[in-house]
Amino acid sequence: MMEYPLRPIGYLRSTLRALDEAPRQGLEGAPDAWLEVSPAFVQGLLGIATGDEVIVVTWLHRADRDVLEVHPRGDPEIPLAGVFATRSPHRPNPLGLHRVTVREVSSGRLRIGPIEAIDGTPVIDVKPVLVDSADA
Amino acid sequence: MMEYPLRPIGYLRSTLRALDEAPRQGLEGAPDAWLEVSPAFVQGLLGIATGDEVIVVTWLHRADRDVLEVHPRGDPEIPLAGVFATRSPHRPNPLGLHRVTVREVSSGRLRIGPIEAIDGTPVIDVKPVLVDSADA
Repeated sequence: MMEYPLRPIGYLRSTLRALDEAPRQGLEGAPDAWLEVSPAFVQGLLGIATGDEVIVVTWLHRADRDVLEVHPRGDPEIPLAGVFATRSPHRPNPLGLHRVTVREVSSGRLRIGPIEAIDGTPVIDVKPVLVDSADA
Repeated sequence: MMEYPLRPIGYLRSTLRALDEAPRQGLEGAPDAWLEVSPAFVQGLLGIATGDEVIVVTWLHRADRDVLEVHPRGDPEIPLAGVFATRSPHRPNPLGLHRVTVREVSSGRLRIGPIEAIDGTPVIDVKPVLVDSADA
């Protein structure tokens, strides 16, 4: 089977230390975090400014990649659904999509939030939100 | 450097055969396509229905991963910007995010669109759009 190697462009530094603390979907209480970009990729930040809305793509490194069905929201009363019909972190390629605001741009790092991802989460990509397009 | 292996869950079957045909951002003219899911992952589709709005994550397999700055929209008159400030396909981890409508659910495949990605593009993930959240 073909595989493609993802290389983290940086890591999140957050006060969230454990999955249990992370809210499942709501944003109430999700903190801001620092995205520390690795030196090799800092050049790619040129043009990102405070106030920008961006999509941060993370690799949910603690997820179980062998899961194909889950009870939505972890509730056993809810019938099983395929992971592609849910936002479960457990899925074959555990990518997280986080729409956040850039709070501050510093040397080689961005303050972003709110974001429900734990400290140390690898970051794979950052993209601007396109307001005049149906792109995600 | 840490790497994570992405495994395609399926591939797009589209009438778009070349990058030149793909519109850069606009959706005018972007066709529908079939997402053919590999047998090992079909179980993950359970619950996806016609009319759903989903985010399809692709791997832009022809992109140049060494690019960190581009002229937006390929226009040399526009000053260079970091790839993380643009939607350029050329970036360290060339993930494409496509918000599409599910047109039809068939055995092991989804008809989706509109989507500006060429025939044979690997698909990495499918996620529901969350309307009541700031998630992408």
